[in-house]
Amino acid sequence: MQTAAALIIGNEILGGKIQEANVFELAHVLRRRGVDLARVLIIPDAPSVIAADVVSLSKDFDHVFTSGGVGPTHDDVTMASIANAFGVEIVREPRLEKLLRHHYGEALNENHLLLANVPAGARQHYIDQSPWPLTIFRNIWILPGVPEIFRMKLEIVEAHLEGHAPFVSRAVFTKLDEAELKPMLDTIVARHPNVDVGSYPRWKDPKYETKITFDGKDADAVERAFEDFHGQLPDGEPQWTE
Amino acid sequence: MQTAAALIIGNEILGGKIQEANVFELAHVLRRRGVDLARVLIIPDAPSVIAADVVSLSKDFDHVFTSGGVGPTHDDVTMASIANAFGVEIVREPRLEKLLRHHYGEALNENHLLLANVPAGARQHYIDQSPWPLTIFRNIWILPGVPEIFRMKLEIVEAHLEGHAPFVSRAVFTKLDEAELKPMLDTIVARHPNVDVGSYPRWKDPKYETKITFDGKDADAVERAFEDFHGQLPDGEPQWTE
Repeated sequence: MQTAAALIIGNEILGGKIQEANVFELAHVLRRRGVDLARVLIIPDAPSVIAADVVSLSKDFDHVFTSGGVGPTHDDVTMASIANAFGVEIVREPRLEKLLRHHYGEALNENHLLLANVPAGARQHYIDQSPWPLTIFRNIWILPGVPEIFRMKLEIVEAHLEGHAPFVSRAVFTKLDEAELKPMLDTIVARHPNVDVGSYPRWKDPKYETKITFDGKDADAVERAFEDFHGQLPDGEPQWTE
Repeated sequence: MQTAAALIIGNEILGGKIQEANVFELAHVLRRRGVDLARVLIIPDAPSVIAADVVSLSKDFDHVFTSGGVGPTHDDVTMASIANAFGVEIVREPRLEKLLRHHYGEALNENHLLLANVPAGARQHYIDQSPWPLTIFRNIWILPGVPEIFRMKLEIVEAHLEGHAPFVSRAVFTKLDEAELKPMLDTIVARHPNVDVGSYPRWKDPKYETKITFDGKDADAVERAFEDFHGQLPDGEPQWTE
């Protein structure tokens, strides 16, 4: 199974100015493509921190997705930090430069062209629906932090990420609490080792107390665990399933 | 300046089932208490991963805040993982046990009492407004993942975290784009080294193009940087300030 990590670069998130929103979107794309998102780091706009983390994640995971720090200002240090981390130069990418010149026309200044700077050896993935590519360096997919643009770039990720069996998921919603459910869950977990069983209590929801989830890449195994648990519940339970 | 890291434990976040919501709340409390949230990790419900990360963060930061994995079921492995990581036993905390017996009354079963299990050497912080405490082990504040309960525990964090000068923040909203702003920003950054200057482009917002932020613990220095930048903007700018 392929694995992934996300490196979210942004003082504005650590400082509580904005709520992080890109991991949720990335997680959905990776689930559909069957890639296991196993680690997320949120770090400051600090070149030495970015460089150390990107090297470490790039080594430990099949894919790394960065978010943030790719604009033209002083706090946009992602490209330079990645280049430094791997000992390569920053170069101007010709096709990106052409796109920027065309887009800005007369209004273009030298700072707009900073958006065409990438680590040497980086490549670009394109899709038919957009002129703007996504830059990838080694196994590092470099995405912007602005949520609307991040989501557009995810379309390129989804189009270019090699296909694998997607994760499948079932869920049971019950009015039993976790302490009541624990003996049943322990049995199910022991019987279905290839299924990831999760238990999530709800806070004062009149509709249900606990959500039990069954996840995995083997759809039949997930279904068997789901049915096995379902069959153990007392009369009147579950409230509903998904 | 005191530093903090957050360790968010939850397959449900990495799997895209729910959007992470606790970091934003924690960040606000830490800003008010003058503590620098410098790193956030989102990791799976995996004991070995939790143990390795909690040891590393506990060493590198003044405070660690964990979120998630503190219920009674098989996927609640935070307490045991922390105990293992530091080579201590899990013990039953008497005052917590008493609270649970009182709360559940006749409905209590042995699994409810699992909520009184903590690493040996842990202590509890209480506030007058709630009977339920927050468990702290070394410099690790152990919070639940359920957002409503996480927020209640944050009241205990805020009451017990030693007070430091809070961070202050100013902001300018402008219709200039980042490439136009860059020369001014570079000047401001060079002149005000103790102020953290951030630049955040907006996606297709008719009200403004870029938000510029000024942050620090020295309120006068922040104000000076803010005013210096403000004075450099052309006529009609900024659109507004905060």
